[in-house]
Amino acid sequence: MAERCINTIRMLSVDAIEKAKSGHPGLPMGDAAPAYILWTGFLRHNPHNPRWPNRDRFILSAGHGSMLLYAILHLTGYELSLDDIKDFRQWNSKTRGHPEYNPDIGIETTTGPLGQGFANGVGMAIAERYLAQIFNRPGFPVVDYHIYAMVSDGDLMEGISSEAGSLAGHLGLGKLVYIFLDNHITIDGSTDITFTEDVAKRFEAFEWHVQKVDGYDLPGIEEAIEKAKGEAKRPSLIIARTHIGYGSPNKQDTSGVHGSPLGEEEVRLTKERLGWPLDPPFHVPDEVLGFFRSAVERGREIEGEWQKLFDAYAVEHPDLAEKWRTAHDGKLPEGWRDGLPTMGDEPVATRSVTGTVLNGVAEKLEMLIGGSADLAPSTGTRLKGFGNFIHDPGGRNLHFGVREHAMGGILNGMALSGALIPYGSTFLIFSDYMKHSIRLAAMMKLPVIYIFTHDSIGLGEDGPTHQPVEQLAALRSTPGLTVIRPADGAEAVAAWEFALERREGPVALIMSRQKLPMIDRGSFAPAKNLATNLIRGGYVLADSRHGEVELLIIATGAEVHLAMGAYEKLTKEGIGVRVVSMPSWELFEQQDKTYRDEVLPTSVTARLAVEAASPMGWHRYVGMGGDTLCLDHFGASAPAQTLFEKFGFTVENVVSRGRTLLSGKGRG
Amino acid sequence: MAERCINTIRMLSVDAIEKAKSGHPGLPMGDAAPAYILWTGFLRHNPHNPRWPNRDRFILSAGHGSMLLYAILHLTGYELSLDDIKDFRQWNSKTRGHPEYNPDIGIETTTGPLGQGFANGVGMAIAERYLAQIFNRPGFPVVDYHIYAMVSDGDLMEGISSEAGSLAGHLGLGKLVYIFLDNHITIDGSTDITFTEDVAKRFEAFEWHVQKVDGYDLPGIEEAIEKAKGEAKRPSLIIARTHIGYGSPNKQDTSGVHGSPLGEEEVRLTKERLGWPLDPPFHVPDEVLGFFRSAVERGREIEGEWQKLFDAYAVEHPDLAEKWRTAHDGKLPEGWRDGLPTMGDEPVATRSVTGTVLNGVAEKLEMLIGGSADLAPSTGTRLKGFGNFIHDPGGRNLHFGVREHAMGGILNGMALSGALIPYGSTFLIFSDYMKHSIRLAAMMKLPVIYIFTHDSIGLGEDGPTHQPVEQLAALRSTPGLTVIRPADGAEAVAAWEFALERREGPVALIMSRQKLPMIDRGSFAPAKNLATNLIRGGYVLADSRHGEVELLIIATGAEVHLAMGAYEKLTKEGIGVRVVSMPSWELFEQQDKTYRDEVLPTSVTARLAVEAASPMGWHRYVGMGGDTLCLDHFGASAPAQTLFEKFGFTVENVVSRGRTLLSGKGRG
Repeated sequence: MAERCINTIRMLSVDAIEKAKSGHPGLPMGDAAPAYILWTGFLRHNPHNPRWPNRDRFILSAGHGSMLLYAILHLTGYELSLDDIKDFRQWNSKTRGHPEYNPDIGIETTTGPLGQGFANGVGMAIAERYLAQIFNRPGFPVVDYHIYAMVSDGDLMEGISSEAGSLAGHLGLGKLVYIFLDNHITIDGSTDITFTEDVAKRFEAFEWHVQKVDGYDLPGIEEAIEKAKGEAKRPSLIIARTHIGYGSPNKQDTSGVHGSPLGEEEVRLTKERLGWPLDPPFHVPDEVLGFFRSAVERGREIEGEWQKLFDAYAVEHPDLAEKWRTAHDGKLPEGWRDGLPTMGDEPVATRSVTGTVLNGVAEKLEMLIGGSADLAPSTGTRLKGFGNFIHDPGGRNLHFGVREHAMGGILNGMALSGALIPYGSTFLIFSDYMKHSIRLAAMMKLPVIYIFTHDSIGLGEDGPTHQPVEQLAALRSTPGLTVIRPADGAEAVAAWEFALERREGPVALIMSRQKLPMIDRGSFAPAKNLATNLIRGGYVLADSRHGEVELLIIATGAEVHLAMGAYEKLTKEGIGVRVVSMPSWELFEQQDKTYRDEVLPTSVTARLAVEAASPMGWHRYVGMGGDTLCLDHFGASAPAQTLFEKFGFTVENVVSRGRTLLSGKGRG
Repeated sequence: MAERCINTIRMLSVDAIEKAKSGHPGLPMGDAAPAYILWTGFLRHNPHNPRWPNRDRFILSAGHGSMLLYAILHLTGYELSLDDIKDFRQWNSKTRGHPEYNPDIGIETTTGPLGQGFANGVGMAIAERYLAQIFNRPGFPVVDYHIYAMVSDGDLMEGISSEAGSLAGHLGLGKLVYIFLDNHITIDGSTDITFTEDVAKRFEAFEWHVQKVDGYDLPGIEEAIEKAKGEAKRPSLIIARTHIGYGSPNKQDTSGVHGSPLGEEEVRLTKERLGWPLDPPFHVPDEVLGFFRSAVERGREIEGEWQKLFDAYAVEHPDLAEKWRTAHDGKLPEGWRDGLPTMGDEPVATRSVTGTVLNGVAEKLEMLIGGSADLAPSTGTRLKGFGNFIHDPGGRNLHFGVREHAMGGILNGMALSGALIPYGSTFLIFSDYMKHSIRLAAMMKLPVIYIFTHDSIGLGEDGPTHQPVEQLAALRSTPGLTVIRPADGAEAVAAWEFALERREGPVALIMSRQKLPMIDRGSFAPAKNLATNLIRGGYVLADSRHGEVELLIIATGAEVHLAMGAYEKLTKEGIGVRVVSMPSWELFEQQDKTYRDEVLPTSVTARLAVEAASPMGWHRYVGMGGDTLCLDHFGASAPAQTLFEKFGFTVENVVSRGRTLLSGKGRG
């Protein structure tokens, strides 16, 4: 029976890939056995309520084996039909090339880019531990689940998994149970040509509990998972020796079966070898389906038991139950805004606003948890009085270490809890190291907050290796990510307010190292409109004092102050200047055309963008006739003020560029 | 005496940082001892000829400790004066915040972003091994040097160092000797809060030779380095337990001494503690200088010996000596172009051109060596008949494994040899994983070639996780990187020709997965001009057949063919259309204004850009009145043709967008 179940997974995968003429049969064929044991023997889940908060999580980090997951989801009764499987890799199907986050059908995260799922799981385990810390009470373990993942050699070769593995071991995340599908084959061939390290030893060095098992020894696998679950203080790695393309007489154990359909003839040979009926394709024996589908009834039962526990908990701890519901509904508790600071008149570095905001709201926003990739003091993300996660009771400061990429993947996993608002910080330059995790957060529309500080040459002496130039362009061009670069403390508070409320996708807050003056909201765009203006992405900060606007200066962050300096000078000269503060391109683009044209009137073609970063993208706002005072080269090592002067970021230069634009129009 | 030498390094660093009011004293103070042993006892170098090809290499991977390196370079007689040290972190000084590649004063690579130097060293060791394989002959070990690096806990936490470490162990790069400065402190505090893994065990798992030593036990350090050098088959890691900020009574062993000057009072206390004169600052005892400067004479001797060896080699093997000179002059051997293919009329995927070119020129271009991050078959980078590097005699195919970031760092290290032309390939989407190494290649102006294939939704079924959108914008906004996206096989060959000749910076070749028709060079921009046109970045491919140009369509890569389809239709309708193929923005921007205006006449404002990627940046060429047929959202999983249709990348849509633009001008 077990063998028939396993072969059903294999052959559904093979047939779907054959029909799509595209896909990766090697993994589902090779690794169906451990998946079968895990899903039928261990995984606590409810196929009819995939969003049950206390379910075990399953991640197929080796996302190219997606058909394995789809086959199991179908068989165990999720809303994924045989027709969906026949629709594999077609337009608008549920069965995408790689698993794409879909909590309604049991897909816990988007995987495919290797190593990401590995790190997501670590984030999920941190979330589990943190939520347990917040909600569990004696006799009421309302948060208590495991995170299982299947990972490949590709996952383990990626640096992100070393980063996340080292941190998971350090944190002692015992709820993690990872199965390494050790098939000795990569796309380029045998792992002998590139990957001969001792994986077991590496993970022991990372403080993991490591076991080795034959990937087809079902009782052996069962025993290993049992032991792994029993290990509460260390994450577990089960190294399962498997054979890619298992059952294919000519392709097993070759890289040829990794990413291409078997081909009609080899499908036939494989089915013969495994004693599987040649026809019809997509064959699912009734007793196999019946066996798998018992997951539905079992799921109903275990969720039912948990619900009873939770109901009793709600009686005993009504406040906690209420907090639970608010958190899991993705809402913020009433009155959280009371913790937002009001800024004074003193210049502040926008990076320092982070600490003020976070520490102001942390008490009320218990779902807010995060930390830094070893730059907590510099980025201002330390929550005072809360200690370190795991090390201290009630701790909620995460020290990711110098591991930006893992931080990105872990934040995604935390956000996937559906309850937490995770944040992570580093210098803007190192957003490069974690870029791909940011992309996946955007793709999954996760409420992750990035705090990227030291946002320009304003970083000064550390030099070009630490001075971002092209990072803003990279982030802004990522679909679904909202990038905000506030111009002063007040905009920074408003940006934080927006970020904390945002549930529809990640937000990157771009903060200055250096102090910035506070804009005089008495004279310019008034403070009472600030939150609205900020959410609109761009707004008129200072308008022409001489009737019609002749010159538009658009700027973000620190450079808004240069624009304002130039405004004063040019205004004195009788020129009609408008300064637009544009903290977020994405938010501005979401406004209707009327508003956008109001802020940037099409009639005004003398336009100057000022930003100490790559000019990439600014021509959208200044046009071919406009000018950009930006940075199209790397920075340098010197005091910040020197750099701004040497690279032309001075009021004088803004004035001069503005004049040149106007003289082109016969003015100035 | 040793102690005085070590204290000189420490105090020069402290004083320079104090004067600059900026810098990282903790590392130079804590780790001067192993540096002293290494530089005075082992490093084979010539301060008066830092470019001597057979010198040992030294990398300060923990680049924030830059003053340590500057102090030693000054003391041992490189062209770096005491005044340069006093000028630390000032505008235009040689002593930048982090070491910036400067082969004239002994700075072997740019470091600071952690983990990069670690990977560079692995690339240098690959280069050493490869050059030895090419040039050494019995009795003539003309290539024989070690690569030493000092790495920090931050370096080792970064995933890139795990990737590179695993590969270095696999390749058995015995010439690597890395010293891990194990000081137990990071910016956030003690490593106890985030980094408790067993580093020795991890590197043993990576197949390294590992030793532990007290970082102040000079004979112990010496013995360890000696043993490490003696280990020819495995890279070596020496774990030296040191104390950050050694000697500072109040700050040693605290994170406070990592990245801030000690402060006047603590400087005084430290000097007292170490028995160092309080005044003057920048004190270098004469006998210390004398001792260090003996490196100059020793350097002259060892280079002299090597030169004798090389002269004899040149007599015995004149062809090899000639080859050596050509390679080290950064020149390509005569006639190398003969290997470039001439394309036929058949459609080809531009990715497949890579294999044709590489295999055509490989025989002549022996300095060309590279490989893939486990995508050799898909990206076409396999050199046939050359076997695998290290595994096969004469092998020169590198299998980086699924380790894109390490590949990036390693390619930089290989390029730093000054002789090799390294290349690496992966899917364009995974350029994200290695972005920061690309940035550093650009900053160092290294001749690295990236082959990024599967360049759009044309990748098809694998879905949005594998379909690039914002990657082109990220690469194009990186200063100093040349990005080329050829439109057909002929442009692809020309792009390769350019890339192979380019010595002034990295080139990214952006290749299609899908087949693209060959442009009919009989009817359109003629083949004889192709190389020139390509180098100009953008050129008129098809011009108006109705006099004046009314509509400009600008496209790259696969989308040029949509533009050409629209051209045919609109031309038939009597509209004056011009199609511009713009494979490289960077190259186009390097042309003079006359040429640019000739290709894109300012009088034509009806402009349409077509590219299946983020529109970011295209407004530079189409202006605010123009239109972009681009992709401002993620892709999807479906056959490529379906995706192009669903997302509007059809000839019909280009025609329709063009018409709309013209109707805005009262036309069409």
